[in-house]
Amino acid sequence: MKRPLEASVEGRGRIVGITDGVFAIALTLIVLEIRVPAHEVIHSEHDLLAAIAALAPRFLTYALSFLTLTIFWFGQQAQHGLIAKSDRRLATLNLCFLAFIALLPFSTDLLADFLEFRTAVLVYWLNLLMLGITLFVSWRYAEKSGLVAEDVDAETKRTVYLRIVKAQILWAVGAALCLITPLASVGFILVVQLIYAATPNVKWVRRIIG
Amino acid sequence: MKRPLEASVEGRGRIVGITDGVFAIALTLIVLEIRVPAHEVIHSEHDLLAAIAALAPRFLTYALSFLTLTIFWFGQQAQHGLIAKSDRRLATLNLCFLAFIALLPFSTDLLADFLEFRTAVLVYWLNLLMLGITLFVSWRYAEKSGLVAEDVDAETKRTVYLRIVKAQILWAVGAALCLITPLASVGFILVVQLIYAATPNVKWVRRIIG
Amino acid sequence: MKRPLEASVEGRGRIVGITDGVFAIALTLIVLEIRVPAHEVIHSEHDLLAAIAALAPRFLTYALSFLTLTIFWFGQQAQHGLIAKSDRRLATLNLCFLAFIALLPFSTDLLADFLEFRTAVLVYWLNLLMLGITLFVSWRYAEKSGLVAEDVDAETKRTVYLRIVKAQILWAVGAALCLITPLASVGFILVVQLIYAATPNVKWVRRIIG
Amino acid sequence: MKRPLEASVEGRGRIVGITDGVFAIALTLIVLEIRVPAHEVIHSEHDLLAAIAALAPRFLTYALSFLTLTIFWFGQQAQHGLIAKSDRRLATLNLCFLAFIALLPFSTDLLADFLEFRTAVLVYWLNLLMLGITLFVSWRYAEKSGLVAEDVDAETKRTVYLRIVKAQILWAVGAALCLITPLASVGFILVVQLIYAATPNVKWVRRIIG
Repeated sequence: MKRPLEASVEGRGRIVGITDGVFAIALTLIVLEIRVPAHEVIHSEHDLLAAIAALAPRFLTYALSFLTLTIFWFGQQAQHGLIAKSDRRLATLNLCFLAFIALLPFSTDLLADFLEFRTAVLVYWLNLLMLGITLFVSWRYAEKSGLVAEDVDAETKRTVYLRIVKAQILWAVGAALCLITPLASVGFILVVQLIYAATPNVKWVRRIIG
Repeated sequence: MKRPLEASVEGRGRIVGITDGVFAIALTLIVLEIRVPAHEVIHSEHDLLAAIAALAPRFLTYALSFLTLTIFWFGQQAQHGLIAKSDRRLATLNLCFLAFIALLPFSTDLLADFLEFRTAVLVYWLNLLMLGITLFVSWRYAEKSGLVAEDVDAETKRTVYLRIVKAQILWAVGAALCLITPLASVGFILVVQLIYAATPNVKWVRRIIG
Repeated sequence: MKRPLEASVEGRGRIVGITDGVFAIALTLIVLEIRVPAHEVIHSEHDLLAAIAALAPRFLTYALSFLTLTIFWFGQQAQHGLIAKSDRRLATLNLCFLAFIALLPFSTDLLADFLEFRTAVLVYWLNLLMLGITLFVSWRYAEKSGLVAEDVDAETKRTVYLRIVKAQILWAVGAALCLITPLASVGFILVVQLIYAATPNVKWVRRIIG
Repeated sequence: MKRPLEASVEGRGRIVGITDGVFAIALTLIVLEIRVPAHEVIHSEHDLLAAIAALAPRFLTYALSFLTLTIFWFGQQAQHGLIAKSDRRLATLNLCFLAFIALLPFSTDLLADFLEFRTAVLVYWLNLLMLGITLFVSWRYAEKSGLVAEDVDAETKRTVYLRIVKAQILWAVGAALCLITPLASVGFILVVQLIYAATPNVKWVRRIIG
């Protein structure tokens, strides 16, 4: 007998659909803050070039957020590729994860506008932390409730946890650097995201990012 | 012979596609109203912290709307998981449901801006009511037209109705509380949404939310 | 041998994906023009109620556009349900159709802002006309190029053309009414859209809308 | 044994999902810059007609960007239709491609606002160049890593490269024309996009665009 909202393969498909939708929108929304300069203040090629150069911090935080979104898209995908079916609670946890993905354009704008303030860095880091926590809790719930595919071994299960924790430690270190200066934090986090996105085949890097 | 727009499994798939799209956008749009403070009025870490703290009602209504969207996403999914195929009228009813989902960011903003006004609470409740009505009518139509999957028993069919009605009764009680004070309404509805989203395994709660 | 972009079933699936995406966004964007009243001008429940009542034309044009999007979503779906595979040109025609769907929020806003001007009605009608033309040309191309599924008979093929032409005739009549007054046009088109969306089982209505 | 994020068919499906999402949003966002004229300055049918006519450059750049998005949607699809499965790096390259697709509404607005400035043309061209580079690198990676489907022959593989390079040469010529006047660049690029979108069955055109 079919019952509403029991654990199912279709439920899993719907999560994928709404997740890719939210990521696609977040990827596009963070660009919206890069605004075209007002026509009135531009009188020459030189003015326009200068106005575009002045947008550089926006492009920097765009790159940062784009990398962050990439990393969490893979994070979500790494989990869901190992999950066979989904029930209502796992879906709710996934929506909580998406709620913090949807907040990322806000945190990013705040960071772009207030690069010199610690508060902005901490809000950004808090967003990263909440994303990590929801991913961690999701995986724990899936594992405990037998939603993980049968051909996933214990080591792989542990690897998923480890990767989340390792990334969070690196970001916490990055956030702590704002005690020195907020720009050090942003720089450190940017380098971390670049390494995660590029996933270089270097042994000691592999060991750190798992 | 194939005829255009007859009841089909593909039609069902398209409804899922457009539904997840609208929910993904609605989830992201409600965040857009949380605006980064203007740079000119921020002169210190303290100013920034205070400006972010001042955004608290926005985060509250964001959480409320996020929970509401979650609940109706499951509501739509609970129905569609039991439906085998879809015809044009069922699709139209589903689009009406989506039209009220698309209005939710508006109702939410109104509530966030006018938390102290009864009218704002009533508009929000009216939105919840219309969502319930479209879901109810959709299910009734699917059942009468033989679009429900064959392995769904009578009790399950009744459960779908019951859940919609029970939720609407709770929200109507919440809305009525604005006769005392609008904040009581918002608080009550928020608690109801939290219970629905968490779906705790407590017996008496289960009996109420069905 | 696989060749890039030859007619394929996957190509057909991608068109469905991007189509549902554009419709989901268009459905949500038309709501964005319904703006929450500014807090400064609202001093009482009565003010807020009056401000919301003043939004009535927005809700009217929202309903109109929602119905229009519904009708064309079904129009596109009616065709694609009969098409077995898609090649690059059919996909391009479909994207042209989507380009005019994406313009619909603009035409709708224009109509909402300038309900009393003939030009606004004509721009809206032009948008409807271009949507009809792209659908017509798409179907013609699919039929001539053997992309239609084999179990579609000649009568069904003719029905698809007929429905497009009949709807366009009704809208042209509606547009012509703006020679009397633009509001007559909007009213007439709204009634036509309501009939299409509801698809009542009345014989003479069925004969008109095919 | 299942491992997280290894090359898989599901990974390929997720890329398709997020790609169609980003394209759907980009297609719709570029329209948002076509703004309805302010009600205060319109006093007659003639005023409204003039205001809409004044939007012509917006419609022109909308058409240009729509064509560009169409071409790159097919470019991405041409590749992915030949790819059997996807791993994390190919997905990252695809997301880089999407990051530049998401920037296209910005480049387009810049061009629409500053049609008479070389800088605007060069930024637009740079965006096209980056899109070509990411597509080229993606294909190279897929080919080297054995992710291309087995039934794709050497000639087809070469054709994919050739098409990217040929399009980039044409756009570079177009960009170079801004040494004469920026409008010549825009006109030339528009004609190139029209030819690509229409893909006419003319022998010498076919030889140029591959």
